[in-house]
Amino acid sequence: TIDAERLWDSLMETARIGATPDGGIARLTLSEDDRRVRDWLGAQCDALGLSMTVDEAGNMFATRPGTRADLPAIAMGSHLDTQPTGGKFDGVLGVLAGLEVLRTLDAAGYQTEAPLMLVNWTNEEGSRFSPAMLGSGIWAGVYSREYGDGRADARGDTFGASLDRIGYRGEAKAGAVRFGAMFELHIEQGPILEAEGIQIGVVQGIQGMRWFELTLTGTAAHTGSTPMGMRRNALLGMARVIEGIDRIAKAHQDAVGTIGFLEISPNSHNVIPGEVRATIDLRHPSDAVLDRMQAEVEALVQDAAGAVGLESRLEQISRTAPVVFDAECIASVRAGAQAAGYSTRDIVSGAGHDAAHTAAKAPTTMIFVPCKDGLSHNPAESAEPAECAAGAQVLLEAVLDYDRR
Amino acid sequence: TIDAERLWDSLMETARIGATPDGGIARLTLSEDDRRVRDWLGAQCDALGLSMTVDEAGNMFATRPGTRADLPAIAMGSHLDTQPTGGKFDGVLGVLAGLEVLRTLDAAGYQTEAPLMLVNWTNEEGSRFSPAMLGSGIWAGVYSREYGDGRADARGDTFGASLDRIGYRGEAKAGAVRFGAMFELHIEQGPILEAEGIQIGVVQGIQGMRWFELTLTGTAAHTGSTPMGMRRNALLGMARVIEGIDRIAKAHQDAVGTIGFLEISPNSHNVIPGEVRATIDLRHPSDAVLDRMQAEVEALVQDAAGAVGLESRLEQISRTAPVVFDAECIASVRAGAQAAGYSTRDIVSGAGHDAAHTAAKAPTTMIFVPCKDGLSHNPAESAEPAECAAGAQVLLEAVLDYDRR
Ligand SMILES: NC(=O)NCCC(=O)O
Ligand SMILES: NC(=O)NCCC(=O)O
Repeated sequence: TIDAERLWDSLMETARIGATPDGGIARLTLSEDDRRVRDWLGAQCDALGLSMTVDEAGNMFATRPGTRADLPAIAMGSHLDTQPTGGKFDGVLGVLAGLEVLRTLDAAGYQTEAPLMLVNWTNEEGSRFSPAMLGSGIWAGVYSREYGDGRADARGDTFGASLDRIGYRGEAKAGAVRFGAMFELHIEQGPILEAEGIQIGVVQGIQGMRWFELTLTGTAAHTGSTPMGMRRNALLGMARVIEGIDRIAKAHQDAVGTIGFLEISPNSHNVIPGEVRATIDLRHPSDAVLDRMQAEVEALVQDAAGAVGLESRLEQISRTAPVVFDAECIASVRAGAQAAGYSTRDIVSGAGHDAAHTAAKAPTTMIFVPCKDGLSHNPAESAEPAECAAGAQVLLEAVLDYDRR
Repeated sequence: TIDAERLWDSLMETARIGATPDGGIARLTLSEDDRRVRDWLGAQCDALGLSMTVDEAGNMFATRPGTRADLPAIAMGSHLDTQPTGGKFDGVLGVLAGLEVLRTLDAAGYQTEAPLMLVNWTNEEGSRFSPAMLGSGIWAGVYSREYGDGRADARGDTFGASLDRIGYRGEAKAGAVRFGAMFELHIEQGPILEAEGIQIGVVQGIQGMRWFELTLTGTAAHTGSTPMGMRRNALLGMARVIEGIDRIAKAHQDAVGTIGFLEISPNSHNVIPGEVRATIDLRHPSDAVLDRMQAEVEALVQDAAGAVGLESRLEQISRTAPVVFDAECIASVRAGAQAAGYSTRDIVSGAGHDAAHTAAKAPTTMIFVPCKDGLSHNPAESAEPAECAAGAQVLLEAVLDYDRR
């Protein structure tokens, strides 16, 4: 049984590194605070006698040997970086629960057959250097080391230079460290488990995600002296697109669709908006449904722009295929939750995770625990000690179950 | 007959003061450039032997005596300040055309019965210090000198301190300088005259204007992991309000209604907007219609917020009653345009002007000339030399007609 208090103490201890006055964490990837939390993790792994390997993207892998050297490791982990307005649990819980599993086995003198591995991925958040999930993406070969090194933050500082500066450029080539399975524990970042009073989400996969940039162009003009019939109001066209996206998403079961970002020009009280730029975020577990949604959005944009007399430009800016997790890994999570006596529910991850990249290289799954009001990327992000402990316990049971198979 | 070339040369000469590389002018009120253009105007008035009075709000009044000392002056003028993205004509044309009228009469040795007066109002634009039309508002007693002095710009610099700094704090009390009528020539700032091929707009008044600030509050949450049925998307509610305002304005003849400004929080690609703030601008020549429109907007906001589960706060931030211009002044403009042989059309000003404040104190009207594509507050703001000359000629004829009555 994992030690709920020790896990919680570790969460609160690391939460001081990069703490913000409002109770959140701003621990941007490859910052000095990221170096400090990495050093802390390294020291904890040392204390357990684990061997640490860091790869050329700064991903950290700590290994505990099993009884059989011929078996590949079973990995656990997530990420220790946060959003600028991050909370104490997103990513951190997955790493510290993995650490707690290793501490528990150590205290119990339990030996697994396969080696166990604890992983801390670099730059999951993507808020300093885009794209998100960059470290795991380099590990999986989706991005090259050179591509990663060249990513620049808003001040022009690069990923590569920052990695060198904090001293976490490892010797291992990306992808050289291998494992036989990956279990990532994470807060749900959504409201479903909390709303249904369920303790453990058995994650089936990650939905596909397509992002578009939409620009509608009309004519900026005076709000007072331009008659309604002579306007080309770009914001009016965008309002119809915002409503249409909502309608399209609601028409497809399990779909979500959102405009979260708008840039209005000139954005002045008494000027009719001449140009509005937006990003559209469409997600669904099925690529076929995403194809249909995309076609509907394209028609919607045509209609809305046409009706208002606007020009439109719709560009796809990112596309991630749906991920289906490994059935054996899922079975181990289900068995683990059952052994520990927790209520479960199958769930598809709405958010992207490092597990999306590892799933392409090794059997992978995730375990979700509820978070208050479904909030994340927010200083108010919150999970109860008992909820975190439940997740760690299921992680332990799932890993042991997988090891026994 | 006015000298079209001399008028155009003056327009182009002043356009160099505060010129921007894109062909516009950024001559913010009470800036060093405002001082320079005021000095230039003072020198031109000196050359004509006019007597200059500056009041405590920096409004400039230059008087040319008439043959009868018992008659109040007939005033002409507008403003020399511009928007940060201003053009060469908004305001400037009204002042320089008045100057051209005085130059023409001087060259012709023509004496009016009433004195003539040229006025340059301080801070019409309101973009450095809100509200707009502040100088004429202080003159008319709508605002106190103390209120005006205390208005601060974005850097915390005040109107009063800036006025003192550029040396244009006059001795005259606000309102002490009186006149018997006011004629303000201005570009239309709208597309109607150009669309109909009309040379002169005979302005009947200024429509009423009500501004509101609307805040819709929902819940910021992850776009990927928050199901459609569990969202409180503030931007979705705002989209319905944007469409509804457009619908309401179109349902009332001669009404306009616009949302030109939005602030979205947190405005991030993958976060459902938790709060959206907007300003709503409603205008109509009749207060009774504005009352109905306002009631419809209040109901619209209730419905849109209710349907999406949002909280709403709707606050009126400004309200200007419709202004009906003086029938005698209008008759003089009509007679003047007829004498000069220009096509005319009655028109109501969609934009606010200093003439709204003078109308409360003295018979007032305005003369509009077309501007390219109805554009203003834009470096691309444009009017032809012949259009400017037509406006100045009608100003001359109208003032002489009024003087003869
Ligand atoms: N877990 C997470 O928030 N990932 C960021 C990418 C996304 O899903 O929007
Ligand atoms: N003339 C002018 O643009 N005034 C500003 C106030 C307004 O009408 O919106």
